[in-house]
Amino acid sequence: MVSFTVTHTDGAARRGVLELPHGRVDTPQFMPVGTVGSVKALAPDDLDRIGAQIVLGNTYHLLLRPGPELIAEMGGLHRFMSWPRPILTDSGGFQVYSLAEQRKISEEGALFRSHLDGSKHLLTPERAVQVQQKLGPDVLMCFDECPPAHASRKEHEEAVARTTRWAVRCQEEWRKDQSGALFGIVQGGLERDLRERHAAEIAALDFPGNALGGFSVGEDPRQTWDGVAHAAPLLPAHKPRYLMGVGTPEDLLRCVLSGVDLFDCVLPTRVARNGLLFTRGGRLQIKAARYAKDPRPADPGCRCYTCRTFTRAYLRHLFAVQELLAFRLNSLHNLTFYIDLMSGLRAAIEAGGARNYMERILESFREGPD
Amino acid sequence: MVSFTVTHTDGAARRGVLELPHGRVDTPQFMPVGTVGSVKALAPDDLDRIGAQIVLGNTYHLLLRPGPELIAEMGGLHRFMSWPRPILTDSGGFQVYSLAEQRKISEEGALFRSHLDGSKHLLTPERAVQVQQKLGPDVLMCFDECPPAHASRKEHEEAVARTTRWAVRCQEEWRKDQSGALFGIVQGGLERDLRERHAAEIAALDFPGNALGGFSVGEDPRQTWDGVAHAAPLLPAHKPRYLMGVGTPEDLLRCVLSGVDLFDCVLPTRVARNGLLFTRGGRLQIKAARYAKDPRPADPGCRCYTCRTFTRAYLRHLFAVQELLAFRLNSLHNLTFYIDLMSGLRAAIEAGGARNYMERILESFREGPD
Repeated sequence: MVSFTVTHTDGAARRGVLELPHGRVDTPQFMPVGTVGSVKALAPDDLDRIGAQIVLGNTYHLLLRPGPELIAEMGGLHRFMSWPRPILTDSGGFQVYSLAEQRKISEEGALFRSHLDGSKHLLTPERAVQVQQKLGPDVLMCFDECPPAHASRKEHEEAVARTTRWAVRCQEEWRKDQSGALFGIVQGGLERDLRERHAAEIAALDFPGNALGGFSVGEDPRQTWDGVAHAAPLLPAHKPRYLMGVGTPEDLLRCVLSGVDLFDCVLPTRVARNGLLFTRGGRLQIKAARYAKDPRPADPGCRCYTCRTFTRAYLRHLFAVQELLAFRLNSLHNLTFYIDLMSGLRAAIEAGGARNYMERILESFREGPD
Repeated sequence: MVSFTVTHTDGAARRGVLELPHGRVDTPQFMPVGTVGSVKALAPDDLDRIGAQIVLGNTYHLLLRPGPELIAEMGGLHRFMSWPRPILTDSGGFQVYSLAEQRKISEEGALFRSHLDGSKHLLTPERAVQVQQKLGPDVLMCFDECPPAHASRKEHEEAVARTTRWAVRCQEEWRKDQSGALFGIVQGGLERDLRERHAAEIAALDFPGNALGGFSVGEDPRQTWDGVAHAAPLLPAHKPRYLMGVGTPEDLLRCVLSGVDLFDCVLPTRVARNGLLFTRGGRLQIKAARYAKDPRPADPGCRCYTCRTFTRAYLRHLFAVQELLAFRLNSLHNLTFYIDLMSGLRAAIEAGGARNYMERILESFREGPD
């Protein structure tokens, strides 16, 4: 149902192939986030042209609107959003902690109110698996407890222990239906001994893939990189390793070099809607006056529709007047940048040059765009 | 530079071919409106796939942002927005009347303040032609005075007289540079004798094409249809006839049968962004609860990407959560509907069945969607 093969290694970095029911995912890979059933501003044919191999769906958002029952009735999330390739859904845990109101966490699960209309919902490990199975993704995630980075050691200890107990319950629930591949999640914040203990506990449950949660939740980027460099190798080497909710191009480069295979983040699409473009020359704020008459593409080295078709001057104009097209064109570009960053990393790992590749890109990022 | 050939007639309806510097336009034809340099929510490749042959640019909006000098410096509007096919620009007159603040009309022209930032601008017949020539469209329009439908007869008389004097000045200004084809505009509201007199005056100026302004500016649709049925045949038969800013699918059907060749209107894209879809079965409000689990395309008879790819259930969900994708998918569909309505009319005129075609469509519209 799910197979993962590491075809090349380069230091801790791995190049692999993840076979899922809806297709092949080359790793390392970035997953665009389709929050409420669409990757914001983009259609499936856009994603296809970008070269996205897998997208993420948010259980929390889809639970609230339009609801898992409706999606199941419409044939599952793939058919509902007309995306025929792999989908991974999160468990909703992170949004319960970051978005929901009046949440009450108990051993049973999380009782919370919707951030939209205040309606009351209960997510337990069992319910999180059931909801995800209704959505019908290729990969579903265990329901976990996600304390912020600045939580106390005691809170992290309790979250880790509870996340293990919940992982066992998720696995038991999953066994009833066995649809999709259930991945485990390792928490522990920046506490190395907790990460080690938890990684061992989750590994023992023998999930077909494992994730690192609780990074990029308020700590400094260097702490993220160090934490991931320590934690990623703790996850079983023959299974895919997924770093949840991270991050910037720099984050991706560094964490691939630490052995991470899968990433997701709203960052490239969110900042695109705010006019920030990632380019081979670094970050480009398209609203800057100096681009008003710039006849060059946003990133002359980019293959995307936006860069092949439009000037910085036009993109600046669209953003300045807040035309809807700006959001799509900027999102298309940033996601292409992310997808191509990962394919560049895969080629570099195959050639044994991952570190050089990373350093070359970080260097050009420091210079900034022309 | 511009040639127009009527290849078939069917009653007053005409099927023709308009050759413009940037390509061929089959008439009758609908022109999507690219207000501020983009057809809202759509990219040029979308328009190409829809089959749009010509788009309209708004001089008023482009004058304010990003300004004609910038567009000229970037190679003109075609290159700026990456639309290689024909473009028609209006003169800004209508928006000065409908959008601008503190407008002061004199024989010289219109002094007004921007609806965006209150900045002061002067549009004279000469300046309107100069601005349009900077944009570099295939067709530019004379600067006219546009009283609302409920204006007094005296106001209409004065507007007509002034619009003729301004048309002469536009033509003189145009002769200096001679780029693009300058079309004349006939005003006169619903006053038939004024329309007749003005049509004769504008025809005498021998523009390569002529337009009807001052329809669909507050009057009842039947009055529009009757007025156009009277006024369209007054325009020279061997030149293209353009009905400005009209309208609904019903308007288009009826006015093609009265001999109109070109249309533009923000309606299909504007209502799309509000969730109204035009279908072969009539108007479909996608937010209606009854579509929540409807597995059918919005319009089963439609060839557009939206209808080939997504269910009503999904479109309803996207609109309910106000995802950006909703605006694009709905706009794609409505414009495809308009473009195909016109190609159906062209085929019907060729076959001598325009009236039957109109009546069949109006009938299905009355029934409403399933």
